[in-house]
Amino acid sequence: MSADNQQERLDEKWIVGFVDGEGCFHVGINKQQKMSLGFQILPEFRVVQHQRDKKILFEFKKYFGFGKICKNHDDRKEFRVRGIKNLNSIVKFFKTHTLKTTKQKNFELFSKVIEIMNKNEHLTKKGFERIIKISSTMNRKSRILRDYMPNTQ
Amino acid sequence: MSADNQQERLDEKWIVGFVDGEGCFHVGINKQQKMSLGFQILPEFRVVQHQRDKKILFEFKKYFGFGKICKNHDDRKEFRVRGIKNLNSIVKFFKTHTLKTTKQKNFELFSKVIEIMNKNEHLTKKGFERIIKISSTMNRKSRILRDYMPNTQ
Repeated sequence: MSADNQQERLDEKWIVGFVDGEGCFHVGINKQQKMSLGFQILPEFRVVQHQRDKKILFEFKKYFGFGKICKNHDDRKEFRVRGIKNLNSIVKFFKTHTLKTTKQKNFELFSKVIEIMNKNEHLTKKGFERIIKISSTMNRKSRILRDYMPNTQ
Repeated sequence: MSADNQQERLDEKWIVGFVDGEGCFHVGINKQQKMSLGFQILPEFRVVQHQRDKKILFEFKKYFGFGKICKNHDDRKEFRVRGIKNLNSIVKFFKTHTLKTTKQKNFELFSKVIEIMNKNEHLTKKGFERIIKISSTMNRKSRILRDYMPNTQ
């Protein structure tokens, strides 16, 4: 067996530490005509690294058993998780293994969005607007968000 | 006992994960007339965070029992360890708890510098030049380094 194959699987506490530093819970809101409300909600979990450390991103993929390694920008790569089923696994993981930095707050908001989507409530105007509100407290307000809710901060 | 006092001490594996993301092993070389070779070698270990997460830096200080929390730049703070005794403890920690990213390579070079300093060999021209060489493979080459060894890459 090669040294690489003998390598241990990532440890849960190491993952939490690394994600406290390098992880990102993001809810994208994209204009999309074919959606009933005209917008698509795209939650995703990302871990970004310089390409010299892409090996560790593949270790994340191996640990979770899903996700993609793709280009972030310039010489940076990301481990990216999309899709409600996989994101539910991510939420379950970080509910069991609590983040220690203020990223925990973002995670809690993110998991609320996933909860709404699990019930398909994001397809209703009310549910969609709840997500918009949550999202506006999570990330820098996007142009779409400013257009949709011009009075929010 | 307050909630804060009840908070668990940082876990070793979490520390390794966080440092794999946010830590820095640095060897500064500063011009200083009063030193026999005209330079001061200043190794340090840093963990940098936005000031919103300075609490976690104090957790590092609590775990290790040494180090300072100081301003990094702008709205960023750092947990900073200097001094050969404390840096020996840091080296011992990361020899026991191995980093998983390419930061491990930097750590190994850093620990070589500490080893040279433990033997006081950095006070000799030969030892000093070994440190300069090691340092030039660790970090972006500083102006001092370019002046001192113009032929190194």
